[in-house]
Amino acid sequence: MKIDLNCDMGESFGAYTIGRDEEMMPYITSANIACGFHAGDADVMKRTVHLAAKHGVAIGAHPGFPDLSGFGRRDMALSPEEVYAMVLYQIGALSAFAKAEGTVLHHVKPHGALYNMASARADLSRAIASAVADADPELILYGLAGSELIQAGKEAGLITANEVFADRTYAPDGLLTSRRLPNALITNTEEAASQVVRMVKERKVRTTDGSDKQINAETVCIHGDGAHALSFAQFIRTKLQEEGIQIKSIEKGKRG
Amino acid sequence: MKIDLNCDMGESFGAYTIGRDEEMMPYITSANIACGFHAGDADVMKRTVHLAAKHGVAIGAHPGFPDLSGFGRRDMALSPEEVYAMVLYQIGALSAFAKAEGTVLHHVKPHGALYNMASARADLSRAIASAVADADPELILYGLAGSELIQAGKEAGLITANEVFADRTYAPDGLLTSRRLPNALITNTEEAASQVVRMVKERKVRTTDGSDKQINAETVCIHGDGAHALSFAQFIRTKLQEEGIQIKSIEKGKRG
Amino acid sequence: MKIDLNCDMGESFGAYTIGRDEEMMPYITSANIACGFHAGDADVMKRTVHLAAKHGVAIGAHPGFPDLSGFGRRDMALSPEEVYAMVLYQIGALSAFAKAEGTVLHHVKPHGALYNMASARADLSRAIASAVADADPELILYGLAGSELIQAGKEAGLITANEVFADRTYAPDGLLTSRRLPNALITNTEEAASQVVRMVKERKVRTTDGSDKQINAETVCIHGDGAHALSFAQFIRTKLQEEGIQIKSIEKGKRG
Amino acid sequence: MKIDLNCDMGESFGAYTIGRDEEMMPYITSANIACGFHAGDADVMKRTVHLAAKHGVAIGAHPGFPDLSGFGRRDMALSPEEVYAMVLYQIGALSAFAKAEGTVLHHVKPHGALYNMASARADLSRAIASAVADADPELILYGLAGSELIQAGKEAGLITANEVFADRTYAPDGLLTSRRLPNALITNTEEAASQVVRMVKERKVRTTDGSDKQINAETVCIHGDGAHALSFAQFIRTKLQEEGIQIKSIEKGKRG
Repeated sequence: MKIDLNCDMGESFGAYTIGRDEEMMPYITSANIACGFHAGDADVMKRTVHLAAKHGVAIGAHPGFPDLSGFGRRDMALSPEEVYAMVLYQIGALSAFAKAEGTVLHHVKPHGALYNMASARADLSRAIASAVADADPELILYGLAGSELIQAGKEAGLITANEVFADRTYAPDGLLTSRRLPNALITNTEEAASQVVRMVKERKVRTTDGSDKQINAETVCIHGDGAHALSFAQFIRTKLQEEGIQIKSIEKGKRG
Repeated sequence: MKIDLNCDMGESFGAYTIGRDEEMMPYITSANIACGFHAGDADVMKRTVHLAAKHGVAIGAHPGFPDLSGFGRRDMALSPEEVYAMVLYQIGALSAFAKAEGTVLHHVKPHGALYNMASARADLSRAIASAVADADPELILYGLAGSELIQAGKEAGLITANEVFADRTYAPDGLLTSRRLPNALITNTEEAASQVVRMVKERKVRTTDGSDKQINAETVCIHGDGAHALSFAQFIRTKLQEEGIQIKSIEKGKRG
Repeated sequence: MKIDLNCDMGESFGAYTIGRDEEMMPYITSANIACGFHAGDADVMKRTVHLAAKHGVAIGAHPGFPDLSGFGRRDMALSPEEVYAMVLYQIGALSAFAKAEGTVLHHVKPHGALYNMASARADLSRAIASAVADADPELILYGLAGSELIQAGKEAGLITANEVFADRTYAPDGLLTSRRLPNALITNTEEAASQVVRMVKERKVRTTDGSDKQINAETVCIHGDGAHALSFAQFIRTKLQEEGIQIKSIEKGKRG
Repeated sequence: MKIDLNCDMGESFGAYTIGRDEEMMPYITSANIACGFHAGDADVMKRTVHLAAKHGVAIGAHPGFPDLSGFGRRDMALSPEEVYAMVLYQIGALSAFAKAEGTVLHHVKPHGALYNMASARADLSRAIASAVADADPELILYGLAGSELIQAGKEAGLITANEVFADRTYAPDGLLTSRRLPNALITNTEEAASQVVRMVKERKVRTTDGSDKQINAETVCIHGDGAHALSFAQFIRTKLQEEGIQIKSIEKGKRG
């Protein structure tokens, strides 16, 4: 049994800081680095790629909508063609910093509203998967477990990683409970860690109606900002290791 | 005798159009494609890379300052570190579109104020050359003939291309006459073409004080917008060919 | 009988030009001037306000989404609070240019996706109407005839102007036929002008199912770019005058 | 004897936070609120104007260069015409929030590189003063004590406020020591406060060559971020009061 721990990184911008990237690096195995659209800038990308490489953390692109003031969290009605070009652009930009650092990109995980919209829309998912494959067919596509994005990645011949969340509850359909609902978040650390352990060991998650749902957990999203980011990261790592679950990044390989 | 004809391309943005890219392609051998900072966007980049590839035109990155409202023509006091990161970012972004098109980038030519500032400043030139070399040491660096940028490119082990201008006059020091001076521009087509022919054949240019100056002309900048862009491109091509000068792009090769 | 002819203006940006503003001014009575979010910049706003004042054209703010690359035409999921602040900001910015020109703003017409989303959503319409009233309760709010925006404007105590379109067809519910449908546009000049004349004289429009629908036409949107913008403006003016319809801007007055 | 304490405020942007605005408000008499170019956005402006009004703090516009990634601290070669339009735009935008809050703007203080460039350049200072006067001739213009900006404000008929710095050293010419020099900053709290007290009481400052220079101190800039912002604000207030110096904002009045 094994699991990847990923974290959104490089979301600072100019004089603005978000996230405790340097402190989080020792706890994670994959960094999703913002590419200058929803967050991040060229200097931050350079610094964050270097940091991840130094810590042996797998480097991924974290493309988002061109919406810095909304931090990429607001739905935008882009066409699949626009999404394709926008994702390819951002992967390319980050790739250059990886190359300059003497390494290569490992994965791509869309950000925020792009991630959510793609989870439910095949056309956007195909645009993203196509951009990833055109940038580099060895890149691993991270997406919500069981979503359209994972499906589109497989169809494009990419290796995919089903992502689960420690601190979010799941609806009976196996998707995330909407953040607008009161029971969307798991705030108890112990409970959040237990949910992850069960997803990895039993491949099941208890949904909000009390029923169990099959889930494929290949990577867990860990938050890198907030007061408890570090202590939670530390806690979940220890918990997973106690359960005999290996923490390691997804292996690259030949596509399907 | 040979010369490269380059043109700035892909400077449209969203609903806005600048340049007659498709019509100009048949006349040029190198396209400098804007990368989304001073002009261009991901969709325009995709389209322009495709267009250049279709016409067999060498594809170059045309990085500029993050100043869309000023079209990258206003000096900005960026540090060499910021310039390095910004240039690397833009080259990377365009590279992805070249790769998706099944080709690779051929050269890099900085835009506008970045080009001008680098011509005279060794620190910025070194930052640019270093970004180009880190992105891909096979890339050819275009810069003002005899400028600091060419010097920095050579020091970084890059192949360089000395750029000359058909429609600009030259000061006695061999640099361009400032656009603020009344005699900065050559508006007569015949005269402009003759200046280029002489720069290629005799490696000399008549400066504004009437004296001759040595100049190394490897690539000529042709403008792609304006009412007379097409007719001038046609005219200078014919003129060069009549003089037995071959029009072809700069060859890539091993660095220094 | 009277009607206002309005046109979107000031949509150029930096080195980019859209619209034939100067040539269109003599034909219109209201200018909706972009405010730097979806289009326009401070210099363009200054120039366009001056141009409108010179021609005695009523000056309106044309606020849009912060989406220059999409020209404000892409839906964005902003909250009513964000829409309120964004609209107030843009009205304020344009007001300063009107004041510097020795005049004041006359109206506000939201742009593109903001206009369309507000037409059908009461919460966004209320946010817009509230921003307009807070900026200046004398401002007239332009909105799609019979839409939520007009309703919200009235509730906020604003004078409103029901806007109709010459070159768009109407669905049986009295709203515009979606641009995605093949019959959305009226391309015949004569037909477009006749639709407007009938809307003004009979307060009716023939919808796509052949039935007539009541419509309140207080202002007509005329396009300011495209090859036929000028000739169509000229044609519709002449036509309206032949029919005894007075072309004049909406009068400001005390609110409700 | 009296002095105004001003602080840059509203420099957060979207998901990004800079400054402890709410905590600082009780200590200051003037807030310079960012206007969305170098920092700030419409939501932040709304919130900050409300906060200042609640605390009875004078509300000023803090216009900067269109350079969010550089926080407006990088010199940009804008023409006086561009500076005029850009400043007028930003003042107008903030004015709308003041009006919606039931108040009006009190002053304008340019930010960062714009402030520094204007200090030494009469053409830019005239452009700024002209924009301020056109927006509202009652606005007070804050500028570096004895600078071109103060001079241009007076010539434009504006009330001006000579600004001094607690934590910066002064060169023998009465201007600030460049930040590039090692002795630019005063890091000792006691020393910083004493410099301000002397500037107010004796209208003199000890410069870096040990000589005294006349200085007119009407407003002191207090920093609102950093670990010691609050404690320094508290310290300098107490110190000034102990010396019998009244802390109050600049009075508006008739110009010249």
